[in-house]
Amino acid sequence: MTNKKIKVGVVGASGYTGSDLVRLAARHPNIEIKTLTANTHAGKTMGEVFPHLGGLDLPALVTNDEVNWQDLDAVFCGLPHATSQQLISGLPNHLKIIDMSADFRLRDANTYAQWYGHTHAAPELQKEAVYGLSEHYRDQIAGARLVACPGCYPTAALMLLLPVVNAGAVDAEDLIIDAKSGVSGAGRSLKQNMLFCEAGEGMSSYAVGSHRHAPEIEQELSLVAGRPVTINFTPHLVPMSRCEYLSVYARLSNGMSARDIRELLIERYADEPFVRVLPEATPPATQHIRGSNTALISIFEDRIPGRVIMFATLDNLVKGSAGQAVQNFNLMYGIEETTGLEQVALFP
Amino acid sequence: MTNKKIKVGVVGASGYTGSDLVRLAARHPNIEIKTLTANTHAGKTMGEVFPHLGGLDLPALVTNDEVNWQDLDAVFCGLPHATSQQLISGLPNHLKIIDMSADFRLRDANTYAQWYGHTHAAPELQKEAVYGLSEHYRDQIAGARLVACPGCYPTAALMLLLPVVNAGAVDAEDLIIDAKSGVSGAGRSLKQNMLFCEAGEGMSSYAVGSHRHAPEIEQELSLVAGRPVTINFTPHLVPMSRCEYLSVYARLSNGMSARDIRELLIERYADEPFVRVLPEATPPATQHIRGSNTALISIFEDRIPGRVIMFATLDNLVKGSAGQAVQNFNLMYGIEETTGLEQVALFP
Amino acid sequence: MTNKKIKVGVVGASGYTGSDLVRLAARHPNIEIKTLTANTHAGKTMGEVFPHLGGLDLPALVTNDEVNWQDLDAVFCGLPHATSQQLISGLPNHLKIIDMSADFRLRDANTYAQWYGHTHAAPELQKEAVYGLSEHYRDQIAGARLVACPGCYPTAALMLLLPVVNAGAVDAEDLIIDAKSGVSGAGRSLKQNMLFCEAGEGMSSYAVGSHRHAPEIEQELSLVAGRPVTINFTPHLVPMSRCEYLSVYARLSNGMSARDIRELLIERYADEPFVRVLPEATPPATQHIRGSNTALISIFEDRIPGRVIMFATLDNLVKGSAGQAVQNFNLMYGIEETTGLEQVALFP
Amino acid sequence: MTNKKIKVGVVGASGYTGSDLVRLAARHPNIEIKTLTANTHAGKTMGEVFPHLGGLDLPALVTNDEVNWQDLDAVFCGLPHATSQQLISGLPNHLKIIDMSADFRLRDANTYAQWYGHTHAAPELQKEAVYGLSEHYRDQIAGARLVACPGCYPTAALMLLLPVVNAGAVDAEDLIIDAKSGVSGAGRSLKQNMLFCEAGEGMSSYAVGSHRHAPEIEQELSLVAGRPVTINFTPHLVPMSRCEYLSVYARLSNGMSARDIRELLIERYADEPFVRVLPEATPPATQHIRGSNTALISIFEDRIPGRVIMFATLDNLVKGSAGQAVQNFNLMYGIEETTGLEQVALFP
Repeated sequence: MTNKKIKVGVVGASGYTGSDLVRLAARHPNIEIKTLTANTHAGKTMGEVFPHLGGLDLPALVTNDEVNWQDLDAVFCGLPHATSQQLISGLPNHLKIIDMSADFRLRDANTYAQWYGHTHAAPELQKEAVYGLSEHYRDQIAGARLVACPGCYPTAALMLLLPVVNAGAVDAEDLIIDAKSGVSGAGRSLKQNMLFCEAGEGMSSYAVGSHRHAPEIEQELSLVAGRPVTINFTPHLVPMSRCEYLSVYARLSNGMSARDIRELLIERYADEPFVRVLPEATPPATQHIRGSNTALISIFEDRIPGRVIMFATLDNLVKGSAGQAVQNFNLMYGIEETTGLEQVALFP
Repeated sequence: MTNKKIKVGVVGASGYTGSDLVRLAARHPNIEIKTLTANTHAGKTMGEVFPHLGGLDLPALVTNDEVNWQDLDAVFCGLPHATSQQLISGLPNHLKIIDMSADFRLRDANTYAQWYGHTHAAPELQKEAVYGLSEHYRDQIAGARLVACPGCYPTAALMLLLPVVNAGAVDAEDLIIDAKSGVSGAGRSLKQNMLFCEAGEGMSSYAVGSHRHAPEIEQELSLVAGRPVTINFTPHLVPMSRCEYLSVYARLSNGMSARDIRELLIERYADEPFVRVLPEATPPATQHIRGSNTALISIFEDRIPGRVIMFATLDNLVKGSAGQAVQNFNLMYGIEETTGLEQVALFP
Repeated sequence: MTNKKIKVGVVGASGYTGSDLVRLAARHPNIEIKTLTANTHAGKTMGEVFPHLGGLDLPALVTNDEVNWQDLDAVFCGLPHATSQQLISGLPNHLKIIDMSADFRLRDANTYAQWYGHTHAAPELQKEAVYGLSEHYRDQIAGARLVACPGCYPTAALMLLLPVVNAGAVDAEDLIIDAKSGVSGAGRSLKQNMLFCEAGEGMSSYAVGSHRHAPEIEQELSLVAGRPVTINFTPHLVPMSRCEYLSVYARLSNGMSARDIRELLIERYADEPFVRVLPEATPPATQHIRGSNTALISIFEDRIPGRVIMFATLDNLVKGSAGQAVQNFNLMYGIEETTGLEQVALFP
Repeated sequence: MTNKKIKVGVVGASGYTGSDLVRLAARHPNIEIKTLTANTHAGKTMGEVFPHLGGLDLPALVTNDEVNWQDLDAVFCGLPHATSQQLISGLPNHLKIIDMSADFRLRDANTYAQWYGHTHAAPELQKEAVYGLSEHYRDQIAGARLVACPGCYPTAALMLLLPVVNAGAVDAEDLIIDAKSGVSGAGRSLKQNMLFCEAGEGMSSYAVGSHRHAPEIEQELSLVAGRPVTINFTPHLVPMSRCEYLSVYARLSNGMSARDIRELLIERYADEPFVRVLPEATPPATQHIRGSNTALISIFEDRIPGRVIMFATLDNLVKGSAGQAVQNFNLMYGIEETTGLEQVALFP
């Protein structure tokens, strides 16, 4: 298996998620990048759109309509939400699809409609799609045809909280997730508040109470809690390009301590190559995982009795998107899970 | 009164707090800067230590021992904690003192000893000192000889929470303060994690559960709550030079709503020149107050029923330190409170 | 004179130049801001467009067509080039106009057409306009009706080079100007390469050999050289919001030394409040003038015999635009030249 | 050959150069990291000193004295200058040494003494050492025992200028190199001007006329010019962590054009995997090579007749140091030159 090259297309390659996927895929020993699409940049080389990829031997960009899907084995999809479901519902059945958009993350059509403002165009695929949180849906991903990679925030939040809520270690009714993200989370589209002069040298909260990653986190937490969970999810924009940092505040269940939570997470992730629970009293830092597929977790006691402070950090474009997509690809093809994902973090 | 020049010394002028005080004082119509001290830089001009002040007509730096205190009317003290109490306890009585250090913020000698690791050297001054949160101790400051300016984080936290806790509008046992600060909060001393390559392009939490601003916030909240209050105060370091951003998560008291809290704060600060409560659904941003003495407050509903999200932001070196010191100086001398503090925020 | 309020309009107030003009004008004791225009934002408050100005008492934005010009004494114009000449040519004669656009900087209609790609719409005003380099055209500015404020790069380049070339101290045929600018130089409009993720944490040159500030610098240098001068002007984009830094490399005329150049500049600017020639071996830094109207100059020997290295730095939005505009306004109204421009640089 | 693991020590692993070497070496298929030294951090794990390397399986740090040199095949040396020569002169002869310090870059003992202020401790090794500019000393490096990796600035400058000066295409007496570097060039040691608050959001020149990379560039240019060459080398510090950008201004030799220079460089580097000459009118950007071993070159016409503008950029810690060290290691061991250096640049 490991010497075979799988023919891959990247649909929507002109965003930051698409380009980071290409960065990783271009060095993956089992991937042959056959097709790159970007409707608004069709005809250009990838190096014209992303000069940092200029030295690679890549196919030129084409429109989605120009793709010969029969030439491909698998598709990574980096399109914006709504667009993604349109395209994917029309793809031939032989293709394995790793979708990095938001379109198939929510299992419930009503929840999707409520948060995205329109009816889902492919509700049957919504049901088929496997939620691509690699460490938690490994078996299902291995057998899936369509994997919906989680949002960057949900990846971090759930990596931290799924085992904790599943164990009943904290009160699921009182979860406060204060999230901080680098600017690439907003994508490459032109928005005034993403200009260097606007986003630089300062910070603010945004989408308070209305960020679309909230229902995704709630969906998964509700599953392990066995009842509907509503969370506080409050994102902030921080002047750095990559990565995100989640500070989670929770009320401990009776008899539980911060140390118990830490032990529980250490045990849960003991064999995971991409998750590290840090030693006591060691806060994680985004600087330590930038560019890598690693997630860091750290647990602290709260000075308020009965509460706990939990931190998680990851690179939003790697473990939070393109890296996890490659990890899922590896799972889907029975390739060693770390293949193509060994990049050490770039610091400074 | 308003034409009189008050002769001022700045003790410990070689830190960021000292230099920002000089930036403001040099343009204050009622201040004559007579003396600047910095023991390790004595003999140098201020422009050698802070070239951005190089164009001002300022006295050269001297040691604390070289100061003729009789020449002065007032002293701004920017020394590190512990050093400050030593010096201030030896000053002649005619001097009005605005201390920007941590030495006289805590009223209780035991609490001081517990958090600072040594017995206070001037406990009687600890009792005399007025806590210099201008908007909340205005009358006491006006009559004080020694004013202890609050820490930057407490200024933001208390500006937001004092009226709210005083009104019993939230549960004081369940206050979570997720704080984010620019790097200047760490001062100008040499620390590896404050290097550009270490603090840049990334973020982390620090001093989790152990930051010395926590007992200061708790002291003031306990006073208005009428009982001891313990808070969650979790600071983070963000790659920007100035400013700080507090995201406060609280449980509403019965019958209270986010809107009630907003109304309460609007009313409380209606006549305050340096505090603005923002319109609904408008998060503040540090970019909007950088370099100015303004604090911004904003209140949001939480998706978790019965909870509220509150934000406060200010420039840690201005409203969080040197600006508030000048504001207190104005109060102590009966000068119009906004004098010398009219700088508009610098954006971008 | 100095107590009189002059009624001022700011046309094109929604760019960075316009907002920095408002920042300064709002605190200028002789300015009453009567009108603010921004065609695309008409109807909004200035605080909605620039929240850092939200605390000021300012008129709401209107379109240019809605302005009653008879209500105004003077107009600051922050429109884009080409637009500016259209508007200004239609203004009533009683208005004094300080134009911050590029439209009236070039005296020659052909040069304008060549660099801006279209015929100038108001060639007679092109002739009338006074080039607003305050320190070098002071008398003409004082008597002018229309002042064309120089570009930010020309302000720095000419402040440095005009006295040097005028004295024949360097070879005007061999001037190399390596310029570095912060990102605000590109304005607030949406361009992909100005996004935080694109402009941050890296740098590049741009507009090599084709930047429109080159002919402006050449125009003024040619005047003092007494013959046409062609320069090398190579701009670079640096990840900071404000300021610019010029490194100028020149061949010394026979018998001249770096020290001679330094003396010459010291003498020339001895009485200027906004220009400082630094001590020997002291390079300037943009950090030292950010937010202020100061320009710094420094001269170094080159290791190549017969050559000299010269540096100049200023804040592109202040001395390079809005600050110099206010300085010119002061000159035009016989107000003390430093009025409203005393802001100390903001550091850090 | 390619399956053999070479036992490697990294001496001085606690600087940025050392850590980036470890980042690369840890993923190099022919390297086994046996030993890491850092005298001031001995006893710690590498993950304690550089948490971004915390997930790697690495030996703990020891002092230089604790190393068993017989266990090693090769040594990468990341010590500060002067220290490096002391250590290397005492190493056993079987070791291949790739020195990343400045100690063996200058061939001439007098030049070394003049620029470094002390007599060289190992002048015989100075003669033996091969200058490790991979693309230009490939054959000598392949046979060397001791390779002196060039400084970061000289790598960029010489990559650009060696072919050009060698061809006599420009006047070697009139070379102006305006260099801009990220902050990591200053290393990890504590200096006030490298603090985030000092180096951030601004820029300045430094070491004007006195940077130690100047004689190194001159040494190599003099060799190809056949006569002593003195250059203008003017470095600037720019607020980014990695990379450097050189803007080189030169006078063309008779009959030469910018296009000729470009052709010459394209031809010279046609088969080089790590050097790319960009298409016409395309300035390079540091963003496009951050974290990779690639150097980019671009050539522009100057508006001054008879002159040319040349740009080169590379990552100072990779192609400018650790990456080139690995490239030289590959050459010394007959390993495919790109092995372990395939990392794509990290953008954004």
